[in-house]
Amino acid sequence: MNSFVYDIPVKVYFGRDQLGNLGLELGRFGRRVLLAYGGGSIKRIGLYDKIITLLNEGGFEVVELSGIEPNPRIDSVRRGVELCKKHNIDVILAVGGGSTIDAAKFMAAGACVEHDAWEFFGANAKPIERALPIVTILTLAATGSEMDTAGVISNPETEDKLGRLARPLLPRISFLDPTLTYSVSPYQTACGAADILSHIMEVYFTTQHDLYMLDKMMEGLMKTVVKFGPIAVRNPEDYEARANLMWASSWAINGFVNGGKRKAWSCHPMEHELSAIYDITHGLGLAILTPRWMNYCLSEERVDKFVSFGVNVFDIDPSLPSMEIAREAIARLERFLFDELGLQRTLTEVGIGREKLSEMARKACRYGDIRGFMTLTPEDVERIYEMSL
Amino acid sequence: MNSFVYDIPVKVYFGRDQLGNLGLELGRFGRRVLLAYGGGSIKRIGLYDKIITLLNEGGFEVVELSGIEPNPRIDSVRRGVELCKKHNIDVILAVGGGSTIDAAKFMAAGACVEHDAWEFFGANAKPIERALPIVTILTLAATGSEMDTAGVISNPETEDKLGRLARPLLPRISFLDPTLTYSVSPYQTACGAADILSHIMEVYFTTQHDLYMLDKMMEGLMKTVVKFGPIAVRNPEDYEARANLMWASSWAINGFVNGGKRKAWSCHPMEHELSAIYDITHGLGLAILTPRWMNYCLSEERVDKFVSFGVNVFDIDPSLPSMEIAREAIARLERFLFDELGLQRTLTEVGIGREKLSEMARKACRYGDIRGFMTLTPEDVERIYEMSL
Repeated sequence: MNSFVYDIPVKVYFGRDQLGNLGLELGRFGRRVLLAYGGGSIKRIGLYDKIITLLNEGGFEVVELSGIEPNPRIDSVRRGVELCKKHNIDVILAVGGGSTIDAAKFMAAGACVEHDAWEFFGANAKPIERALPIVTILTLAATGSEMDTAGVISNPETEDKLGRLARPLLPRISFLDPTLTYSVSPYQTACGAADILSHIMEVYFTTQHDLYMLDKMMEGLMKTVVKFGPIAVRNPEDYEARANLMWASSWAINGFVNGGKRKAWSCHPMEHELSAIYDITHGLGLAILTPRWMNYCLSEERVDKFVSFGVNVFDIDPSLPSMEIAREAIARLERFLFDELGLQRTLTEVGIGREKLSEMARKACRYGDIRGFMTLTPEDVERIYEMSL
Repeated sequence: MNSFVYDIPVKVYFGRDQLGNLGLELGRFGRRVLLAYGGGSIKRIGLYDKIITLLNEGGFEVVELSGIEPNPRIDSVRRGVELCKKHNIDVILAVGGGSTIDAAKFMAAGACVEHDAWEFFGANAKPIERALPIVTILTLAATGSEMDTAGVISNPETEDKLGRLARPLLPRISFLDPTLTYSVSPYQTACGAADILSHIMEVYFTTQHDLYMLDKMMEGLMKTVVKFGPIAVRNPEDYEARANLMWASSWAINGFVNGGKRKAWSCHPMEHELSAIYDITHGLGLAILTPRWMNYCLSEERVDKFVSFGVNVFDIDPSLPSMEIAREAIARLERFLFDELGLQRTLTEVGIGREKLSEMARKACRYGDIRGFMTLTPEDVERIYEMSL
């Protein structure tokens, strides 16, 4: 059991009608705000007007950056960095889902250096020692970016989609209002639920011994997603479902459940290559890959974790033989992802063929084999892609 | 479902051999350290020497305050306040269990005001607006004081034992090394486990609707205590048991599982009167009272929570009738507390008779009826004390 440091000083306002505290919290960092958001959805739901009113009442100088795309691109980050420098921005207010928040993180870091923001990524990545403070208003429960130190940025020129972790990227304050996710479509809600579940599974499925308590926490989070994902898909304005998914999304990936585990994640690096080239939604890619990855990993040596997962998340009868529980657990996960959430089942269905599987497998292992639950070589990754066709 | 603010910026070093970071962390706050601790146990286990060496190497000026008692007294706090003021202390390093940390909290607050520290307590309590920074090294898993804003202090003159919550009392850094609890006696380990379990049950047993996810987190924490409490009692040097109890103790009461619930706690105010007058260990008092309180509260209207508790913490067959599950859950809790942890079963066994039950019941309701899971009048409290004889 490894030691670890727990240190997550993000302040979260959770619930309806907490936005009244926005001015107070932003004001701690200064008066010049970069308001970063994506498409028009925050205008459609009236959130944009509400924020502008609050910022005006608070006497803030506001510079806007809109149009941050899903799978956010380095060009959006570059535009943000330019605005931060030009207007001497004090704090970035990111309003949206993980894409907007991820982009805001690298704008915040890029504003503090002279080099191009893409240099924060890749094998010889530049250090991230400082960043402007980031405040978020979350409108999509999925990536957990509102409470973690990570972000993922795409570069269409190089067909790369690369992640980076750095302490200064941690948001200072996040506003989590479940009602702001009411307008998220059933499809995006389903992708979000698959993403949250994957974040937990990436940590849960490990051969490293860690605190039993953390396994219990993860099983509770997974049960929460399994219970409320389908409800939110069917009834987008179910407050309880939206609230549970939203808080679970933050805790799935803020580091708490990780404890001292040091294994790499598996499905995320494999998926990033899919959405880097084909621009599919991250959660959908994870949903398609995860059951195939589980089938590929299942062995006598690793079966115990499948058993805990099946028994404690899907309430499968613990008296059955281990391998039977494991196979049933995978079947139940598939039923959850593809029937209850209604996500597409194969890469073929989303228009991904064999052509680039080998190239993507090589890129997924660009830093070496993926040393997760099971060590995956480029050949293993290609095989899992093939199983997902 | 109520809104809430989540804000727990305590940094925790968890595991063996993390103390090397002590100097670095203390140094952020200054050079003059008040080292507060209890009896000689930290000397017996070699921890005192280790700390002194680290502080000397770091060039800190150290003032010592030892002899902080279990159920810490206001006089210890006063001595600490005096030392902080006299030596212009920058940071308090509390080494011990909840008693030492609780006392350190009010020294830290008292050092910033002119009035007597006892004025922080009671009906007309003075505000706590500032406190010296507090760093803790935990040696007993129980109260959760290492990661919360609360403390409880006794005043033998008035036979009062009063609690207080205040934001500035939150420790900045806590070192949680499970091996430092190896020397905790089986009896104190058992009392600690009972205390941790009670912290969760006080929040879990509520009629307020809150996030399902938080119920799952609490059930996971309770399962952890039920699993590892007896193991630590039988085998004090079981790292896994000590580690699980230690991290669970922090998360039981740091506020995370509370979400937006606003009900008062029940067993804690009843217990505080016992240990205020009879000086019994807090966790023991809680163990004796809790099953009786549950029996007293059990009704058709409140049975559902007992059922979840029984099924999800003690794995009782969910197909049984609700009332049967509830009674079995109480029986299983009693078996855990009195048989597996080996704690004494009645107030009579610990030397508490009828004499002061009525006075203690009145004091437990000094601020009005206890508005928890079930509203308790002084008569109700007295009845629960009687059931515990």
